[in-house]
Amino acid sequence: MGKCRSLVWDGEGLVLLDQTKLPREVVYITCRDHGQVATAIKEMKVRGAPAIGAAAAYGLVLGAREVADRPDFWDALMDVAATLRKTRPTAVNLAWALERMLQRAQGSRNNPQEALKLLTEEAAAIAAEDVETNRAIGRYGAPLLPQEGGVLTHCNAGALATVDYGTALGIIRAAIEMGKRIRVYACETRPFLQGARLTAYELQADGIPVTLITDNMAGYVMGCGLVQGVVVGADRVAANGDVANKIGTYSLAILAREHGLPFYVAAPCSTIDLATPDGEHIPIEERESTEVSHLVGIPIAPKGVDILNPAFDVTPADYITGIITEKGVVKAPYAEGLAALFRK
Amino acid sequence: MGKCRSLVWDGEGLVLLDQTKLPREVVYITCRDHGQVATAIKEMKVRGAPAIGAAAAYGLVLGAREVADRPDFWDALMDVAATLRKTRPTAVNLAWALERMLQRAQGSRNNPQEALKLLTEEAAAIAAEDVETNRAIGRYGAPLLPQEGGVLTHCNAGALATVDYGTALGIIRAAIEMGKRIRVYACETRPFLQGARLTAYELQADGIPVTLITDNMAGYVMGCGLVQGVVVGADRVAANGDVANKIGTYSLAILAREHGLPFYVAAPCSTIDLATPDGEHIPIEERESTEVSHLVGIPIAPKGVDILNPAFDVTPADYITGIITEKGVVKAPYAEGLAALFRK
Repeated sequence: MGKCRSLVWDGEGLVLLDQTKLPREVVYITCRDHGQVATAIKEMKVRGAPAIGAAAAYGLVLGAREVADRPDFWDALMDVAATLRKTRPTAVNLAWALERMLQRAQGSRNNPQEALKLLTEEAAAIAAEDVETNRAIGRYGAPLLPQEGGVLTHCNAGALATVDYGTALGIIRAAIEMGKRIRVYACETRPFLQGARLTAYELQADGIPVTLITDNMAGYVMGCGLVQGVVVGADRVAANGDVANKIGTYSLAILAREHGLPFYVAAPCSTIDLATPDGEHIPIEERESTEVSHLVGIPIAPKGVDILNPAFDVTPADYITGIITEKGVVKAPYAEGLAALFRK
Repeated sequence: MGKCRSLVWDGEGLVLLDQTKLPREVVYITCRDHGQVATAIKEMKVRGAPAIGAAAAYGLVLGAREVADRPDFWDALMDVAATLRKTRPTAVNLAWALERMLQRAQGSRNNPQEALKLLTEEAAAIAAEDVETNRAIGRYGAPLLPQEGGVLTHCNAGALATVDYGTALGIIRAAIEMGKRIRVYACETRPFLQGARLTAYELQADGIPVTLITDNMAGYVMGCGLVQGVVVGADRVAANGDVANKIGTYSLAILAREHGLPFYVAAPCSTIDLATPDGEHIPIEERESTEVSHLVGIPIAPKGVDILNPAFDVTPADYITGIITEKGVVKAPYAEGLAALFRK
């Protein structure tokens, strides 16, 4: 298993790189039932929209194995899918992967062993395709980056957020592979610190120049001319091009526009949800306030203070220079461009 | 000593509330020589432009006592002042307070005991005036806040950043005193967490409603309509109205404009530096990278990663709705308005 690959199926269980322990410890956990996968997703041991899609697919395989002997196999499998689906509400890849899995197996709903075989194949296909998808996103995105310069990113849309290679960081990797000299400015991404803990870690592991900043330094870095553009991932892209992504993305998009910098979103088609008309219809997960008030278990705020902790925000399409998918770069008007992707 | 008063002179030494320990521990330290004061300022045990001005004034008193028996008293006192002045480069109050102290005593440069008496009086005057100044800022600023609503603030420009009462938070206190119903949204203010540790603490202590957010939630909070304006402090105001303040302030000013919200800077005249023509001439302190890479001593980023840690940024005057001083509110054109304050 590569140093920054988020998950691998070992034939019996789903092996996850525990992202809550990075960068201090590299710990792998093996999930042997769907409940363990659901907990790992909820606790963000595996996170990132594409990675949780693939993890949920394998969670369904494990669930199918658990209920294969039950006479109500298919109904029980629906319950497993529901458990996995509700672990996190914002990223649409979770629902997308489960839906794709169930469609593949539904012809064999009365033959659990056959269904299990099909589900195992489909999960493997989802995981394998994810890496190919990211490489294609990289190929479309890399030409948009400067030959030499700085690129700002937020959270972790890298190998760790996908099965491997990454979406936003896949574009960086592809740019480096084609000889561009890029330094990444990584926002630390409070409260969960995916930028400090994961993005800095995986870029450092690959020898890609990276400078870590606190989230509130983004305007300063842009104003100093240290970056020539912004590339982020996405948890859900609505039909009109509005993008839900890690909290703070919306602020970065405004700052980029103010500085005349391009703002790109890297997103596989599995993240695009044509059934959601716009950003107002994307559910925003509110997480535990202790993520803000505590750090590695230590309080950094007075006890009992009110806290907001939305995990995501919505960036209106209007602020987005382009959405980079594995089928090409979509620009405004987004409604048409995004719909067209699904006719390709 | 009040719960949130930053410093008090006990006749023999300068008692400081150690702000690096808040909110977990309320610890007072007593500085008995100027070196201890310089270290306390450098290590941010006392911080906030007005507070470090007052602390440096008392540091000079302690230094004068140390060198009172030396034949080269005045030269030695100049060395003390230089040591105190260079502890932190951005806030101009430090230089302002030291300059005022030396002017008061220079007529007695050949009479150390008389000089010491004058310096002690002047430091007391600086500290006492600071509280009065903040109350005046509060009186001018409070009418600008909504009768009911949310106000965003950054870092800590409160009682803890001054001798008492605060500049930006003084305006909040004055608004509450006049019956307004205000909830403060406090940005946690990485890397040093002055918002989480200090602003949340002192507002909670006063029973003022406060909601803590991470810095990257500011755009979200504005977009949701939770705040009707922004009020921050300042470390230095240039002659043209450009404002140096805690890193992240510039981003907030851009976000405020994008959301059509007023952006106010609360600053005593001691923070206004007419000798600095504009923001480009304000020195920006770069602090230790460990403030970003570690939290309460625990690493949160991979070892050896490159890090930026500018302690301040500059907000161009153009983004500022008004600068609220103890002599009134200055609006654009700032060059004229700020210069006029010093003719009053």
